[in-house]
Amino acid sequence: MKSFRKELWFNTPTRLAFVNITPQVESCVRECGVKEGMALVNAMHITASVFINDDESGLHHDYSQWLEKLAPHEPVKQYRHNDTGEDNADAHIKRQVMGREVVVAITGGKLDFGPWEQIFYGEFDGRRKKRVLVKIIGE
Amino acid sequence: MKSFRKELWFNTPTRLAFVNITPQVESCVRECGVKEGMALVNAMHITASVFINDDESGLHHDYSQWLEKLAPHEPVKQYRHNDTGEDNADAHIKRQVMGREVVVAITGGKLDFGPWEQIFYGEFDGRRKKRVLVKIIGE
Amino acid sequence: MKSFRKELWFNTPTRLAFVNITPQVESCVRECGVKEGMALVNAMHITASVFINDDESGLHHDYSQWLEKLAPHEPVKQYRHNDTGEDNADAHIKRQVMGREVVVAITGGKLDFGPWEQIFYGEFDGRRKKRVLVKIIGE
Repeated sequence: MKSFRKELWFNTPTRLAFVNITPQVESCVRECGVKEGMALVNAMHITASVFINDDESGLHHDYSQWLEKLAPHEPVKQYRHNDTGEDNADAHIKRQVMGREVVVAITGGKLDFGPWEQIFYGEFDGRRKKRVLVKIIGE
Repeated sequence: MKSFRKELWFNTPTRLAFVNITPQVESCVRECGVKEGMALVNAMHITASVFINDDESGLHHDYSQWLEKLAPHEPVKQYRHNDTGEDNADAHIKRQVMGREVVVAITGGKLDFGPWEQIFYGEFDGRRKKRVLVKIIGE
Repeated sequence: MKSFRKELWFNTPTRLAFVNITPQVESCVRECGVKEGMALVNAMHITASVFINDDESGLHHDYSQWLEKLAPHEPVKQYRHNDTGEDNADAHIKRQVMGREVVVAITGGKLDFGPWEQIFYGEFDGRRKKRVLVKIIGE
């Protein structure tokens, strides 16, 4: 069994952002040489997500609006987590809704995707350096 | 290490539907002969889910009602994604809430399940052919 | 390829509870001797979650309040699942939002975590014995 590990770094200019990281994950699959296996891609921070959906800016706008209504950033005083001096309780909630990780099949040396699947880094408390882990196992 | 891949196809008669796919996944486990490993079961389309919960029609009704309230299909004009000519922005949101995939342990050649766990295909934009991927690795 | 399986048992005194199970999962990783691989940690019951987030009591309070608003326990008659004699339809919904499982990379014989990642058992219908499965594969 082969295994591979790589960290991807991000520093988004906005508090909330969606970044298509499919090319970086594809590079990892090529680099490790695994032909049949699984790739785990997860946020290493607890106010960020990794998820799979469509690379369409209108949809990303819809996600942002819907998440903000579901777990509003303000007023920050509505969250007990923010009593610790943080202002990111909403980001911890948004990340749970969108998910921490994806597991993607690797078949014939490639990510085994449906027609529109793309992997995104979802940032809900950006403007600082944060990481995603890519771990691959297989043969 | 053994690996196995199979696509399951669906064409639900309704826009929203929940289909118990546990028997098909169990067939895959038997067919591949893996005794110890992991099975990844994921929607290959980004307006559908694979999730594990109860095979109880009342609960499926509750999920439908609750998801419709959380991310209503209409009015379709409320979503920027639908400016592209689609009318399925709500389905992209519902799928994120319910999840893209499950990873299930395989132990002794069987899905290693608790007492009520069943695998469902969750369709939020049906009435056309769509796929689920089953990928198994192990020994 | 090595594989390992262990069940963790819980009986929370309250209906809703969050329990940090990171030490138990770390023990499993040490016990199995896998240096490179993946650990699947999943609720075996469909009204409970396993998720990764912060071990901060204010945040857990925020999750509880937010989930209760999103899928209220009462009135229990609002859910068709509860017509079966159950009163836990809300718990089935809360579990979908928070997720069934996490997959964690194992690198150098340890859980490959970011700075604040901790694994939680999320209970939404407690006061009885329930289980979590830890399954590890790797080398």
